[in-house]
Amino acid sequence: MSGYSFFQRFPKVFQTHPMLGRVLVVCAVTAVSGGGLMAFSDARQKSMYAKPSQGEFKKKKVVVVGTGWAGTSFLKELKNPSYDVHVVSPRNYFAFTPLLPSVTCGTVEARSIVEPIRSITKKKSYDVHFKEAKCYKIDAKNKKVYCQSSQDKNFDGKEEFALDYDYLVIAMGAQSNTFNTPGVMEHAHFLKEVDDALGIRKKVIDAFERASLPSISEEEKKRILHFVVVGGGPTGVEFAAELHDYVYDDLVKLYPQSKDYVKITLIEAGDHILNMFDKRISAFAEEKFQRDGINVKTGSMVVKVSDKEISTKIRATGEVVNIPSGMVVWSTGIGTRPEIADFMKQIGQTNRRVLATDEWLRVEGCDNVYAIGDCATVNQRRVMEDISAIFSKADKNKSGTLNIKDFHDVMDDILERYPQVKLYLKKKKMKNFAALLKNTQENDQNKPIEIDNVKKALTEVDSQMKNLPPTAQVAYQQGNYLADCFNRMEQCEKNPEGPLRFRESGRHRFHPFRYRHLGQFAPLGGEQTAFQLPGDWVSIGHSSQWLWYSVYASKLVSWRTRMLVISDWGRRFIFGRDSSKI
Amino acid sequence: MSGYSFFQRFPKVFQTHPMLGRVLVVCAVTAVSGGGLMAFSDARQKSMYAKPSQGEFKKKKVVVVGTGWAGTSFLKELKNPSYDVHVVSPRNYFAFTPLLPSVTCGTVEARSIVEPIRSITKKKSYDVHFKEAKCYKIDAKNKKVYCQSSQDKNFDGKEEFALDYDYLVIAMGAQSNTFNTPGVMEHAHFLKEVDDALGIRKKVIDAFERASLPSISEEEKKRILHFVVVGGGPTGVEFAAELHDYVYDDLVKLYPQSKDYVKITLIEAGDHILNMFDKRISAFAEEKFQRDGINVKTGSMVVKVSDKEISTKIRATGEVVNIPSGMVVWSTGIGTRPEIADFMKQIGQTNRRVLATDEWLRVEGCDNVYAIGDCATVNQRRVMEDISAIFSKADKNKSGTLNIKDFHDVMDDILERYPQVKLYLKKKKMKNFAALLKNTQENDQNKPIEIDNVKKALTEVDSQMKNLPPTAQVAYQQGNYLADCFNRMEQCEKNPEGPLRFRESGRHRFHPFRYRHLGQFAPLGGEQTAFQLPGDWVSIGHSSQWLWYSVYASKLVSWRTRMLVISDWGRRFIFGRDSSKI
Repeated sequence: MSGYSFFQRFPKVFQTHPMLGRVLVVCAVTAVSGGGLMAFSDARQKSMYAKPSQGEFKKKKVVVVGTGWAGTSFLKELKNPSYDVHVVSPRNYFAFTPLLPSVTCGTVEARSIVEPIRSITKKKSYDVHFKEAKCYKIDAKNKKVYCQSSQDKNFDGKEEFALDYDYLVIAMGAQSNTFNTPGVMEHAHFLKEVDDALGIRKKVIDAFERASLPSISEEEKKRILHFVVVGGGPTGVEFAAELHDYVYDDLVKLYPQSKDYVKITLIEAGDHILNMFDKRISAFAEEKFQRDGINVKTGSMVVKVSDKEISTKIRATGEVVNIPSGMVVWSTGIGTRPEIADFMKQIGQTNRRVLATDEWLRVEGCDNVYAIGDCATVNQRRVMEDISAIFSKADKNKSGTLNIKDFHDVMDDILERYPQVKLYLKKKKMKNFAALLKNTQENDQNKPIEIDNVKKALTEVDSQMKNLPPTAQVAYQQGNYLADCFNRMEQCEKNPEGPLRFRESGRHRFHPFRYRHLGQFAPLGGEQTAFQLPGDWVSIGHSSQWLWYSVYASKLVSWRTRMLVISDWGRRFIFGRDSSKI
Repeated sequence: MSGYSFFQRFPKVFQTHPMLGRVLVVCAVTAVSGGGLMAFSDARQKSMYAKPSQGEFKKKKVVVVGTGWAGTSFLKELKNPSYDVHVVSPRNYFAFTPLLPSVTCGTVEARSIVEPIRSITKKKSYDVHFKEAKCYKIDAKNKKVYCQSSQDKNFDGKEEFALDYDYLVIAMGAQSNTFNTPGVMEHAHFLKEVDDALGIRKKVIDAFERASLPSISEEEKKRILHFVVVGGGPTGVEFAAELHDYVYDDLVKLYPQSKDYVKITLIEAGDHILNMFDKRISAFAEEKFQRDGINVKTGSMVVKVSDKEISTKIRATGEVVNIPSGMVVWSTGIGTRPEIADFMKQIGQTNRRVLATDEWLRVEGCDNVYAIGDCATVNQRRVMEDISAIFSKADKNKSGTLNIKDFHDVMDDILERYPQVKLYLKKKKMKNFAALLKNTQENDQNKPIEIDNVKKALTEVDSQMKNLPPTAQVAYQQGNYLADCFNRMEQCEKNPEGPLRFRESGRHRFHPFRYRHLGQFAPLGGEQTAFQLPGDWVSIGHSSQWLWYSVYASKLVSWRTRMLVISDWGRRFIFGRDSSKI
């Protein structure tokens, strides 16, 4: 994380001196070379876990389902050899998904952003068993997962098998959300998997080749070369920008007759694209796209997709417009996988949209099952639910009243257990918890605090609770956190390190999971990128593009992928992107 | 061609000093840097063809069908801007096919060996129109080719169109020959196209993943991991060797449990593998494969392929053996494409197996149609057919007899028109044509030569006629030769440069096509390669592998592919081959 934290500390510099961005390449080299140090510390850490002698105890069986960001970071970080680890995933590799939009246009090759799971796990001092299969059913009652082989095209007969577990880590990710829009599943391309990106790449070349055939009419040419992107989030925007660069940097040189027919449209239901970013970034992106000739249609909802057109409804007027189009790329967010929905029914989470875990990433409603990444969300506990318990815990002498000093003892535990309190204090610009109570308390500090007053003070605190965004960053941190818990499971069983259990006695085993937001990129094409750091820091332009190059190169999963991606960038710079249809 | 001819001149050195092979890397660099000089001479040559002023004459329309070795070398060499060039091919790229076996195992990436045809042709000073389509019918009578778009998966409706031509260059290549063996089309993999190689790569990984599933029995594991290669030619042998290296260098490290189940079998109908090579090479390859544990079954014919087994018939005993197998790769030579067979019927070449051209690569039986590469063969003219014409041409004074001096005038023309004469003289170790006649002539040199004696002398000459092998080298030279003819079409019309027309008056426009064999490689795995030069020169081992690297790197079609292939080799050397299933 050396790259991130360095940048986090000095964000303002980039705003005032944009040229400094280039210096970051040097920083990236530092970040990259830091990998060596990390590898060294890995080796040291391994010796921390004394190998248990055979027969002394049966290893606990951990089944990890999924090899995306969450699953892979869990596997990478898990170091305690007292587990028997089994991994199930339909993909035998980890894919560095933030570079998927680059794969769609051949800026980066698909193979450069993937690393076989077996390569990642073979570095472990203990065995990890990988099974290339899709988990189609979780049976929490009998502690079993049911799997089906995913080699369906090359081998006949779907192999099925069941795995039992002691601990289950669900990291299956999510699927694209079509909002049940008719035709999307059949006719639109998604951008979630490596195969999706390769499919889009072929389709773009196909479109250009088809438009060059002598039998194609002018109108049909226009249709074929009209590329529509649905969803103005970071992925959709990056894809539209990449496609624009691919078309105008490379393809029009090879297909000069097609130049006048190409059109790229970005459809967004909201009022602005990149609306999860700062307004400055939204505005910059919209202006840049307008200059580039990318047609941005905000306030339009897609109501139907067919093989030859896409129907949108203008939100303001309700008018439905049919737009002829050769390709639709659908990138509007994520929905729950059917296997997860089925599991939720089983464990009584019927009224929820997403699988809920507690702050320790344990699935609510069943034992020894954890869920990380896009398939789940952390269901934060409300202060108001526990207010009486908190009060009675602080009231050690059971006097029925408290003063601020009594609160001091449980203050840190409250802040750790209910992070929304801290956010609320920050928002209200209060120094500490005492200040919050003081607000509702009459002037006398030593006067006992009534529970009603505490309740009053905390009424608005829960409004600060936010769901975590379904990003790679969250999934990565969750995997890391959970592996750390698994590494120290026995140790923390004996010496719990977490906050007080307000409703029960003792302490929680671990500190709860806490997400640290490290900033977010939105590449806008033409070697320009927008970058937003926590707080109000925003950086847009060529300097951020270099920052983007540096951070992504340093975050890649292995030296192989790092070398490949960097050489892909170099190749694109020298020779342009390839347009062979393979 | 600088690389080749250098090696041709000093082949013996490599036999006596095998270590010298490494020095060749330096030579390759020389060969590669020679490209710059070639580019320079290209630029100079262009100015030779004065651009005809508009309206002066209608450009002749040349349609080239196919973008393999033959079609692409024709396009690269064609420099005369007085043609209107149209290219039709279902693949919008040229693939460097000798590296296909490397692609099957990821030693080299597919994209590294392809170059878009549009990139190749955009360097031309005049327009070349490419159409991504399959030519399904040639109508020589009306000078038209009929084409169908090949974007069938991504776009509905097969677009069809017709192209008329003044000159047609057929360079469609051939298809794999299954010898009508049942099940081959359905269950075997071929190794002719880039997609084939990618399919094999996926299948190998699939096999290893499937064999790792807990529900697979021991017997089934053995079956799945039994890879069978049919055909002991250079491609089959190279693929078996590559697969062996992939499995034992890389895959067994990731799939250690599978090691004992893997088996590679190479089936060859003849008595030896690599039987078109020198016996020393065959023997070396067979020994090496035995040491490596590759099971070589010579004298076995495949009679049936099903999804789970392959049936072979042992030639000596007639016994049929069924071998369980997870993958069959079929590489037994080539057969005629249906479109070519249909065209042959049309022009009366019904009794032939392959499309026949004359020595100027013109298709026999129709005008202005040329055929190059694997789809055609040069039908050499027999001396005996023309013997009377030759005699009467030499007999200028129509005396009915000739002496050796009379022959002197037409000697060169005979040697050029009938290359088999030269081969025969070489075989018989005769100095020249006169010596051949002397053998049948009585002692007196000045005595007139009777036609019967000439006939007698030449009886065995035609036995030296050989069909050219269907290799990239032949296709490349044919494309080059034909483009050179097209470049100088008008010039040679006025000043014919070819040999005498013995049956008619005047001279042929061009020298006939003459193939120069520059040697052949057979990579055997484990960084060893066999290399055979014309004559008896043979080099086997690590030194030849370096020669192979050097020659292949220098012969790649563009700087981009050259850089990519070399970096692929480097990547493989450092990180091994990737096993992600994409």
